[in-house]
Amino acid sequence: MGLSQFKRVFLGQPLSNQMASEELIPKWKALAVLSSDALSSVAYATEEVLIPLAAFSVLAVGWSIPIALAICALLIIITISYRQTIDAYPSGGGAYIVAKENLGTTAGLVAGASLLIDYVLTVAVSIASGVEQLASAFPVLVEHKELCGAFIILLIALFNLRGIRESASIFALPTYLFVVSILVMIGVGAWKVFHGVGLHPVTVVDQTYAAVPLFLILRSFSSGCAALTGVEAISNGIPVFRQPSSKNAKITMLWMSGILGTLFLGITFLSHLFQVMPKADETGVSQLAHAIFGNSWLYYVVAGSTAWILFLAANTSYADFPRLSSLLAKDRYLPRQLASLGDRLVFSNGILGLSAAAIMLLFLFKGETHLLIPLYAIGVFLSFTLSQGGMVRHHLKEKKPGWMRSCFFNGLGAATTLCVLLVIAVTKFKMGAWMVILFIPLLVLVFNRIHIHYLAVGKELSLAGLAPPEKLQPFKHTVIVPISGIHRGVIDALRYSLSISSDVRACYVEIDSAATERMQVEWKRWAHEVPIVVLKSPYRSVIRPLLDYLDDVEQTAHGDVITVIIPEFVTKKWWHQVLHNQTAFVIRAALMFRRGKVVTSVRYHLRGT
Amino acid sequence: MGLSQFKRVFLGQPLSNQMASEELIPKWKALAVLSSDALSSVAYATEEVLIPLAAFSVLAVGWSIPIALAICALLIIITISYRQTIDAYPSGGGAYIVAKENLGTTAGLVAGASLLIDYVLTVAVSIASGVEQLASAFPVLVEHKELCGAFIILLIALFNLRGIRESASIFALPTYLFVVSILVMIGVGAWKVFHGVGLHPVTVVDQTYAAVPLFLILRSFSSGCAALTGVEAISNGIPVFRQPSSKNAKITMLWMSGILGTLFLGITFLSHLFQVMPKADETGVSQLAHAIFGNSWLYYVVAGSTAWILFLAANTSYADFPRLSSLLAKDRYLPRQLASLGDRLVFSNGILGLSAAAIMLLFLFKGETHLLIPLYAIGVFLSFTLSQGGMVRHHLKEKKPGWMRSCFFNGLGAATTLCVLLVIAVTKFKMGAWMVILFIPLLVLVFNRIHIHYLAVGKELSLAGLAPPEKLQPFKHTVIVPISGIHRGVIDALRYSLSISSDVRACYVEIDSAATERMQVEWKRWAHEVPIVVLKSPYRSVIRPLLDYLDDVEQTAHGDVITVIIPEFVTKKWWHQVLHNQTAFVIRAALMFRRGKVVTSVRYHLRGT
Repeated sequence: MGLSQFKRVFLGQPLSNQMASEELIPKWKALAVLSSDALSSVAYATEEVLIPLAAFSVLAVGWSIPIALAICALLIIITISYRQTIDAYPSGGGAYIVAKENLGTTAGLVAGASLLIDYVLTVAVSIASGVEQLASAFPVLVEHKELCGAFIILLIALFNLRGIRESASIFALPTYLFVVSILVMIGVGAWKVFHGVGLHPVTVVDQTYAAVPLFLILRSFSSGCAALTGVEAISNGIPVFRQPSSKNAKITMLWMSGILGTLFLGITFLSHLFQVMPKADETGVSQLAHAIFGNSWLYYVVAGSTAWILFLAANTSYADFPRLSSLLAKDRYLPRQLASLGDRLVFSNGILGLSAAAIMLLFLFKGETHLLIPLYAIGVFLSFTLSQGGMVRHHLKEKKPGWMRSCFFNGLGAATTLCVLLVIAVTKFKMGAWMVILFIPLLVLVFNRIHIHYLAVGKELSLAGLAPPEKLQPFKHTVIVPISGIHRGVIDALRYSLSISSDVRACYVEIDSAATERMQVEWKRWAHEVPIVVLKSPYRSVIRPLLDYLDDVEQTAHGDVITVIIPEFVTKKWWHQVLHNQTAFVIRAALMFRRGKVVTSVRYHLRGT
Repeated sequence: MGLSQFKRVFLGQPLSNQMASEELIPKWKALAVLSSDALSSVAYATEEVLIPLAAFSVLAVGWSIPIALAICALLIIITISYRQTIDAYPSGGGAYIVAKENLGTTAGLVAGASLLIDYVLTVAVSIASGVEQLASAFPVLVEHKELCGAFIILLIALFNLRGIRESASIFALPTYLFVVSILVMIGVGAWKVFHGVGLHPVTVVDQTYAAVPLFLILRSFSSGCAALTGVEAISNGIPVFRQPSSKNAKITMLWMSGILGTLFLGITFLSHLFQVMPKADETGVSQLAHAIFGNSWLYYVVAGSTAWILFLAANTSYADFPRLSSLLAKDRYLPRQLASLGDRLVFSNGILGLSAAAIMLLFLFKGETHLLIPLYAIGVFLSFTLSQGGMVRHHLKEKKPGWMRSCFFNGLGAATTLCVLLVIAVTKFKMGAWMVILFIPLLVLVFNRIHIHYLAVGKELSLAGLAPPEKLQPFKHTVIVPISGIHRGVIDALRYSLSISSDVRACYVEIDSAATERMQVEWKRWAHEVPIVVLKSPYRSVIRPLLDYLDDVEQTAHGDVITVIIPEFVTKKWWHQVLHNQTAFVIRAALMFRRGKVVTSVRYHLRGT
């Protein structure tokens, strides 16, 4: 089976340039496609706010309300700020591009590194949380969370390797199902609260704020900021919108933020009213749905749609990660082969790398969302800050109409996200954020080393400043054909050699002088026009005399190049290859680093056994 | 660092043909070189006889004396039988050669498979026993037997990879030290018995034979037969003897058997008299040496020299295994590359394989000699039987003077070893012998499949029956140079292409039409004489359009061969390679199984970073 068939079977049909760009989608579909990452985070954000508070004291959980309100305020600031970006970069302004263009290369690379790390974390966190939702509904899964998570990651990877068409419809169903089911849950919950149905005896009105350390509140806030990951997706995805795309994108962004804020606040308020406390085996959303719907089918709709949208959120990283890698590779900060999105084969490296890293994280952190959260959001907020900061610079340069207003909002966004970034970094440092803080500059260093290498190579290979020749001069070259006997493969190799050079010499390493004589008789019959050199091998080595002979020819032939033509076999069954061609392999390895040597295999295709 | 330097540093200097064959050695040295395997087995043979008996009852151990005498009788028969082989095969008659020449290929392959398996077991058993001797002297090692064993195997493997000069002197010291120290121990022990010093109160004279099942006695006998492994080594090694080599070999064989019998009987008698019983943490030899020498330095000499000769015995397999593999490979029953003993590189596969298998066995059987013994000796006795049987056939064919006497002795040898083989197979079957009995035919099957493959290939490649042409016809060939731009590497590739064909075409996959235009302007300046084809890539794939174009050229060019010349880079630092040449790799893989395509890399050697 050829490589292309292999690719077809395992990776699906390639996507045409036309196909990919033709599909422009209405706002309601774009909302579904671009916001699963952001919306899904409400599944764990409230609980993450509660965990540090509840660990301190039962009374401290009341702080979750003002913290949720603060996060919503932050959401509004970021939304307004990103609407400026949509206006300025109508073809999609990712943090890497915006930071690079306005703040310089290093800022761009830092944003790129942050985002790459965060894509990996998005997969790990979303899958961990999704599995926890399922495990809440089906407790039998609790003990196998890592395995379930790894299995789902591999499944998503497989879908992506085969190339799922990113059909908007696939996203619409789970996204709207999730939004509607959570809204229904909030509505029914609010009705129950209003009528005092199913509430615990504790009076909810007498709420006072227990005295807690500021650090604790900041830590809860930091954890809750995970709710805001993914809100930038719409500003990156403007090209999929119908015309006028910028305007449509801005409207969609408003809707998305509105829904996100509503869901997050609703869940947080109700969690407080229904006295949901973080538990090891059941997620907050599941506890809330149980409290509101009991064990009815509606509970399973909430649990199922929550898990579904979380898996979908993980899936978005599988598009974002290769896309950003490709941008970095085009600018020569990552290996070149990642640049071309054309062959699915190229994607597959990114997909496999992303999957492996996410699975590793999942096992390292035992599949627990709240252990992964301290690593999360740093990358996102760093890229927010760089992107918004870049926008400020952009407005100051361009000074288009209304630039001062835009500049103010972006400045507010940048300043706010920078503060949040510092809060996150400090409060989560010991719990794991240090890893990310260490890894981002390391990654930037690697990007730079790769870039320096490519620049040096480009310079070395450049023809700039050289005068083109009248005519390309062919090389003078000598062909050496090492043989171990005479057979059809050798005859083919000799015919090929005669077709490429007038200076062809065969050489034969003598192990046994009787065999040499027999060979020479045959040689006279079959290939008398090609001179043959018999090399003695005092050490019984086949390679050594050949290499010495090549050195000899190099000294005496005064050609530019020596081509070594090796007769090889291609067997019908690939595992038969182990029985052949080892000499070819060794010769190739020995000549790998020698200048002026070209090694060519002339393959004889065996029919049989 | 080139491959040859790598080999030099890690594997040492190659051995010259002359060097290897020049060294003919006197009998006393040959004895040391060729009998470490046989002599070392007395270190565990007595104990292996005692283990089943002692497990049955304390009184049953008395049977060890008649069993040891039976084994010595067997030794005499085998020795006389092998003296006939020395006469008939003065250049060394291994079981594989003798069985193949006289009983046919299958018998030869069975003998070969048996021996290969037994070489692995020799390493495992000798190392296990050697470590047990050391652990008896230094009990701290008891808990780490497998690790110690694995470490020693790796050490021996390293020595062999580097190529230890098989200097006879290295063998002489430990072998004679062992023989002398055991003889001294036996002498002192006998003196103590005679004078009744240090003996236990049990009267040794009143020995009667307890009633025990026949099966038990046969099993003890089978285990004790491990003492006879390696006695054939001298008949394989005749070429190292000085002239008259056959006569010298026969004399040495007698000496070896005499020493082996004396040591084995001496240890067995004394073990009985000193009431040595198998213990988990101390070997029989160590117990005996303790009983005779106490804790004096003489004890440590015995323990040390015993361990030393056992490690040396393991080392002999490192020469035998590649040698036999090479014979099988020359006859095309194993991959061809094993045939040439010339390059150490070739040996190393055998050495690494042998080491890996032995270490695996060691861990599988917890480093316990007595767990490994049931697998041992089957292969040896099977090869004994086939070899002696082959000799009977040989005498019947040749009928040289005195053939009837020789035929009688070989017949006796064959019949006896066959009986012993059956006894071993039956009594040890359940304890592990079944593995060996299963593995030998499997190995023979593999040998045959390999042989069939090589025969088929040989037939397909053969020129027999074909008329030689007047003149070798060069191929008509077209050269295609896929390029991604214009740089020095491409210029080199084009110059090379022009030197090998008059029909050179460059091709360029268009991803971006603006880049194509820039490229074409440059092309006119630098390489106007080479036509360039621009391939559209609707699916953004680089490989697909290229493969389609190759098909196209194949249809229209009417040449015999298409050569694809790929400009590649060789970076200064090998790990930079990952940043280059992936396209070359993919093209090569895609064309691997296509006929009429030659893929050549023209390498541009980068200087810098």
